[in-house]
Amino acid sequence: MTDFTAVTNVGDNAWFHGLYVCPDIDTVTYTLAGVADEERGWGIEGDTFRTLGQLERLGTDDTWFKIGDLDFATHLFRTSLLKQGKTLTQVTAIISRALGLKGVNVLPVTDEHVETRILTREKGEMHLQEFWVKWKGELTPTDVVYSGAKEASVTPAVTKAVASADRIILCPGNPITSVMPMLAVSGFLQALRRSRARKVAVSPMVGRGAFSGPAAKLMAAKRLSPTSQGVASLYGDMIDAIVVDEMDADQKERIEKQGVSCIVSRTLMKTRADEERLAEVALRA
Amino acid sequence: MTDFTAVTNVGDNAWFHGLYVCPDIDTVTYTLAGVADEERGWGIEGDTFRTLGQLERLGTDDTWFKIGDLDFATHLFRTSLLKQGKTLTQVTAIISRALGLKGVNVLPVTDEHVETRILTREKGEMHLQEFWVKWKGELTPTDVVYSGAKEASVTPAVTKAVASADRIILCPGNPITSVMPMLAVSGFLQALRRSRARKVAVSPMVGRGAFSGPAAKLMAAKRLSPTSQGVASLYGDMIDAIVVDEMDADQKERIEKQGVSCIVSRTLMKTRADEERLAEVALRA
Repeated sequence: MTDFTAVTNVGDNAWFHGLYVCPDIDTVTYTLAGVADEERGWGIEGDTFRTLGQLERLGTDDTWFKIGDLDFATHLFRTSLLKQGKTLTQVTAIISRALGLKGVNVLPVTDEHVETRILTREKGEMHLQEFWVKWKGELTPTDVVYSGAKEASVTPAVTKAVASADRIILCPGNPITSVMPMLAVSGFLQALRRSRARKVAVSPMVGRGAFSGPAAKLMAAKRLSPTSQGVASLYGDMIDAIVVDEMDADQKERIEKQGVSCIVSRTLMKTRADEERLAEVALRA
Repeated sequence: MTDFTAVTNVGDNAWFHGLYVCPDIDTVTYTLAGVADEERGWGIEGDTFRTLGQLERLGTDDTWFKIGDLDFATHLFRTSLLKQGKTLTQVTAIISRALGLKGVNVLPVTDEHVETRILTREKGEMHLQEFWVKWKGELTPTDVVYSGAKEASVTPAVTKAVASADRIILCPGNPITSVMPMLAVSGFLQALRRSRARKVAVSPMVGRGAFSGPAAKLMAAKRLSPTSQGVASLYGDMIDAIVVDEMDADQKERIEKQGVSCIVSRTLMKTRADEERLAEVALRA
């Protein structure tokens, strides 16, 4: 029996070197398979970069997006299967199985292509990866759009998982680049609303910033307060409760006035034990 | 000034993992760039096989064709450029330049897809690579066809190179899998015939077999004598002279009766010096 389903964002998917790269799906899959490079925060542990180095020597200009030799296999395999007509959901299941995942389903929110695009003051519109990796998040974002999200539909597998869930956790990903692009996909928000599961978000914010990543900057671009309270307002009536960091304890009252239960806990995750404890909190919330 | 052009076979080109792989072009390019793995006879020196190993773990069944991590970069880069609309000739020139080739043009005989297919008694028809690499040449070939060759045309660059050459060497490649698939491409044979260059072949045969590879078996499948004399008859009026091994000295008279000058030399190449000496012989012939 599967007792855990991870529904993943696809808004950071992109084509590199003719291959379909799905960074969020892969990070989830590699992490659950125990092969993720946790120190680096992406890719496979112990991976090397020989193919990428050679691509650079040959004159490719896309090498700012780092793909390891083992990681390349995932993208080659996925792209071939997609071209054979398999859906992203099917391909993700095949890769998960091959990497040894058991008792966990990893489901892309949609099988269609959705792209989180950042409008910047300095360089115009670009893919999220370009904003975050190529430009190191140093440009000034003025807006964020989820290109293709409305035209895309949530998959039947996700709809079913959401409908039958006892509890749904909105993980402490970047609200603008990890959670909202999923909610923008036609049918996903409706499925969440219809589900009788208890819905608990974990805020990625502490004080007026995020633990890591460009969340604060991008929330500001969306004219949202880059705080746990801002996250609570953004998720609004989609969630029953939110877990916020101890440092944001003072926001509890204001959050609860918006009709969302607020659980105060330590949310900074440095070790596997921290992660497990926070998961416990979210599951009990 | 370019004083040397290598026109290469494309009949062994094949798709692997969604990438367009051109073994003959790459072997020529890698060799001329000084990065070929000469011991193995294919690929790049010191290459590793991490991506391929991971592809195997993921469940790909095409891993019998060995592609190294550095070599993968070539195929990724080439496939991307082809998809951008560049011709194989253009892509080959870009890769050659990036690998540092100077004073040498590597030209695929055609920009179109041609495939050398082997008909076998045991397993029916298959791509040459499948016959030679996957099945290790152990099946019984009954015929060889050059699929797409008639529909393909020789490139203008090759026509020009052939027309302006002083001397054309038909290298001691397998006549059936390296030379004939080129001659089968529309316009190449005509261009060779029109050219006033002196045309010299080097026989890959010695006695009733080849120094290496499946030449004898495949010549037999084409009902040709697997000898230097057989090669001379096959190339017929396309060549002015043929270099044969000392062990085939007894065939000289019969070959010259066919109207082809025959130069007897040591043709086994074990060292770079052997290669240079044989090249000298062919250039003087």
